[in-house]
Amino acid sequence: MLTLFHHPLFANCRFVRVSFGEYGEELALIEEKPWLRRREFLSLNPAATLPVLLAEGDTPIVGATVIAEYLDETRGVLKRDRRLFAEDPFVRAEIRRLVDWYLVKMEADVVRHLVRERVLKPVMGAEFGGGSPDSTALRAARANVRQHMKYTNWLAGTRNWLAGARLTYADMAGAASLSVLDYLGEINWSEYPAAKDWYTRMKSRPSFRPLLADRVRGLTPTSHYADLDF
Amino acid sequence: MLTLFHHPLFANCRFVRVSFGEYGEELALIEEKPWLRRREFLSLNPAATLPVLLAEGDTPIVGATVIAEYLDETRGVLKRDRRLFAEDPFVRAEIRRLVDWYLVKMEADVVRHLVRERVLKPVMGAEFGGGSPDSTALRAARANVRQHMKYTNWLAGTRNWLAGARLTYADMAGAASLSVLDYLGEINWSEYPAAKDWYTRMKSRPSFRPLLADRVRGLTPTSHYADLDF
Repeated sequence: MLTLFHHPLFANCRFVRVSFGEYGEELALIEEKPWLRRREFLSLNPAATLPVLLAEGDTPIVGATVIAEYLDETRGVLKRDRRLFAEDPFVRAEIRRLVDWYLVKMEADVVRHLVRERVLKPVMGAEFGGGSPDSTALRAARANVRQHMKYTNWLAGTRNWLAGARLTYADMAGAASLSVLDYLGEINWSEYPAAKDWYTRMKSRPSFRPLLADRVRGLTPTSHYADLDF
Repeated sequence: MLTLFHHPLFANCRFVRVSFGEYGEELALIEEKPWLRRREFLSLNPAATLPVLLAEGDTPIVGATVIAEYLDETRGVLKRDRRLFAEDPFVRAEIRRLVDWYLVKMEADVVRHLVRERVLKPVMGAEFGGGSPDSTALRAARANVRQHMKYTNWLAGTRNWLAGARLTYADMAGAASLSVLDYLGEINWSEYPAAKDWYTRMKSRPSFRPLLADRVRGLTPTSHYADLDF
């Protein structure tokens, strides 16, 4: 079993967990607090970011998209219909564009800020930047939720899955990001029916079960978070 | 010939240009001002970011790393010794980690801010956020230059090329990022002899020539910028 250094409410880490889950592969999870900059963790990843996978021979593979490419090259390529990637270079580019949309752009516009202000700052020591949430940062992030939900709703309404006809990494990335916002009750689902229908399909998948069981100390998820028929 | 929407001083765009240059493939360049959010450009890339490649059939390929993967899948794989990527999944992961280090992390810590404050704001209209540079943003970015130069110096001092024995995308990404800072005179090379030696080798490559000829209106590069023996 491979090991993943992660945080339960980081979208990039959730993406890796569901992607391994789709291939039926269990991961040993180690919860890392990257702001502590532990020396052992820095030796695995000098950027001090999550996730980091300890692959075969304990070789560190750093970052969600890098891990996804590694997973595809070493496992996915053998999965035929269940592969979360495509053969065609143009379809691959579209999948990668959407993975970056969620894990880089939506992360920078929205998710990172809500997680920092609402999840991390209450438990981080003051010496690491902890404290009460910054309402300006919260407001700015919340203003961006709408644009990303509208785009997801458009994708889900015009395609079978986010990147096209088949389930791919794009769906894993989108659902991982939305699951964090949903835990925090930041999505008004009634405005986005196509996105809601797609996300219901995603959260019903066995690979999603461990995510729906996650709980963060001092922060209960919205009542419908783990509800498959919300 | 394929077309690239780019900005001459964006590291992510320079990375794509030198990578195509290494394979002897010319690109038609269109300079895009992404802050104007032109409708035609948004239809190619709703994220309104650069670079965007118009590949075969005018299919847009969005983002530097996505373009690099596409380039490898459609050209690089046939280049044998000249391929900028590797066969081994672990080496591929290390190359990708370093490409992300420069094009995502160093970009967010340093390059983006210096380019915005020193290159873009003087020419952007006030309605798009233009104006005089923000000295706090400049100071914060400059404080981070050192850490990234030290890391590059360490990599260049312990490996033949940044990701190991061979020239790869990691070198293209590192050199593209450093070339922007060098244009702006933000690197004190005498502190980083191993990085300087590696960068001299990089800027001597034919693929680098077009970058060294770039000039941005109203901003002359440092005197040694295009000098191969600086």
